[in-house]
Amino acid sequence: MQWYFVAALLTVLTSSQGILTTLSQSDGGYDYDYATVPFLAEVFKLLVSSFLLWRECKLSPLPRMTTEWKSMRLFPIPSIIYLIHNNVQFATLTYVDTSTYQIMGNLKIVTTGILFRLFLKRKLSNLQWMAIVLLAVGTTTSQVKGCGELSCNSFFSAPIEGYMLGILSACLSALAGVYTEFLMKKSNDSLYWQNVQLYTFGAIFNMARLLLGDFKSEFEQGPWWQRLLNGYSFTTWLVVLNLGSTGLLVSWLMKYADNIVKVYSTSMAMLLTMVLSAYLFNFKPTLQLFLGIMICMMSLHMYFAPSSMLVDLPLTVKAAPKNLAEVSVHQTTDS
Amino acid sequence: MQWYFVAALLTVLTSSQGILTTLSQSDGGYDYDYATVPFLAEVFKLLVSSFLLWRECKLSPLPRMTTEWKSMRLFPIPSIIYLIHNNVQFATLTYVDTSTYQIMGNLKIVTTGILFRLFLKRKLSNLQWMAIVLLAVGTTTSQVKGCGELSCNSFFSAPIEGYMLGILSACLSALAGVYTEFLMKKSNDSLYWQNVQLYTFGAIFNMARLLLGDFKSEFEQGPWWQRLLNGYSFTTWLVVLNLGSTGLLVSWLMKYADNIVKVYSTSMAMLLTMVLSAYLFNFKPTLQLFLGIMICMMSLHMYFAPSSMLVDLPLTVKAAPKNLAEVSVHQTTDS
Repeated sequence: MQWYFVAALLTVLTSSQGILTTLSQSDGGYDYDYATVPFLAEVFKLLVSSFLLWRECKLSPLPRMTTEWKSMRLFPIPSIIYLIHNNVQFATLTYVDTSTYQIMGNLKIVTTGILFRLFLKRKLSNLQWMAIVLLAVGTTTSQVKGCGELSCNSFFSAPIEGYMLGILSACLSALAGVYTEFLMKKSNDSLYWQNVQLYTFGAIFNMARLLLGDFKSEFEQGPWWQRLLNGYSFTTWLVVLNLGSTGLLVSWLMKYADNIVKVYSTSMAMLLTMVLSAYLFNFKPTLQLFLGIMICMMSLHMYFAPSSMLVDLPLTVKAAPKNLAEVSVHQTTDS
Repeated sequence: MQWYFVAALLTVLTSSQGILTTLSQSDGGYDYDYATVPFLAEVFKLLVSSFLLWRECKLSPLPRMTTEWKSMRLFPIPSIIYLIHNNVQFATLTYVDTSTYQIMGNLKIVTTGILFRLFLKRKLSNLQWMAIVLLAVGTTTSQVKGCGELSCNSFFSAPIEGYMLGILSACLSALAGVYTEFLMKKSNDSLYWQNVQLYTFGAIFNMARLLLGDFKSEFEQGPWWQRLLNGYSFTTWLVVLNLGSTGLLVSWLMKYADNIVKVYSTSMAMLLTMVLSAYLFNFKPTLQLFLGIMICMMSLHMYFAPSSMLVDLPLTVKAAPKNLAEVSVHQTTDS
């Protein structure tokens, strides 16, 4: 399977996620407990990966599976980073408004590039660095609040703690991605076996989060497993399946492509969601969305196009080299 | 003189132009007739160029000067194109509001690139084309109306004639620039002699425009020469000198650099004006201005940086080649 096919599929599914989540609401609220969705998505990914691993085990040669504790103990780390990240997110939102928070989220594109370089020791050309910064600039441009919008919160007016936490949040998010890539590429183990380890810990951590929520609300609504599927509609199940599928695609990309591909894929998904929302929910597309899309498309081309295609000047007319050849032939006969 | 020094000076003077013009107003209006400014600037340029040509004529070898009618008859053409352009501008503004008009003005960056390619047969790499489009996107981004601004005119709601005239206007503006470059580079004539021809026609056409204005207003305020310097302050004279100086720099760039350099120079000036206005006139800088500046800076780097600097991967650690050298030495002694 080609990586760009997987990346394109990830873009489509990630952008469906926002649309499906909106469609799963009724009267602007959720009939179900949204916190149960990531847990069920982890379970879905675990089931799919276990099934694929089991099928792989029936074939020869057997899939490579490292079962040492030394290797397995690394797999909860991404979940732990995401847990810390979640708490930093909550803390950030006490200092900044949601639109500033959303704008700062684009910083994660740049921090991913930096950690990708520092942690995974991957080299990027000047142009690729510029492309990464442009991608962040492009997604930010598309989110600039339009003229005449009701809530005008200025980007430059939050307290300094808000910006510091925003940067920390971007670093943690990038670290989780880069660490997962490191884990997936570290060994030649079967992808499905790596997934099973990753998602087992993912499911456990999500369960712990649900339980923690129950303790916080002093079991007012009973334990989470008793109300797990309360209010689930067909669309809610689609949200779960969609979230699970994007997770599986990200895993694949971490092993066979890299974090930068994932970042492009999800950034493009963000823009696609905005375009689709304009059609589906009658949002008016803004000039800044159009500009943002242009910037991101050029960034994509700058990052992935072969360098010769980018910097070579177009060839001169075909006649010229022919004449030159004739000249040199004449010279040879003359001398 | 290096072209980038001239280009930087042009940026500074062009951005001063907007600031000086604002400073020359009193109570938001002009005490003087603004239409007289371009005429006096043409006269200033003509005087400076004549003086420099006269000084050049005293030296040996004598400056090259083609005085055939066949060559001289081409010099009014830029003035004629600007005259048509002015009228198209007026027509455009009857269909679109000023902010849409300003946004469409950025199209001239792209049309200059296209005519530069078609008319002057200059080749650009893929990356340079992308840089040109990015420059236009960047200047447009900086002009996106911010959240909470009072007059919200949507960019996408003007009648189709407005957009067509906007495109025509961008083409005419680019054509004038590209034609001037063609004129200046066509022969090895002295720059000052070419300027004298250019500005003589420039002064004549500006005079004609003032006279036309007088006829239109049926000489209510008397003929233009009687009220030429009415209401001129020190700042108004600075505006004239500044406009004249930018014209001389543009001429120099057309002969020794090219239209793309000029386009970068004036686009950067537009951003510089916005930044300076934020300080001088207490405008609040917007997020989109910051994003626009980043985009234009990257475009600048993409267009002008040597391609090896852009696409080459950073070298591996210095130790590696050294070890390789040692290895090959060992191999040589072994064999």
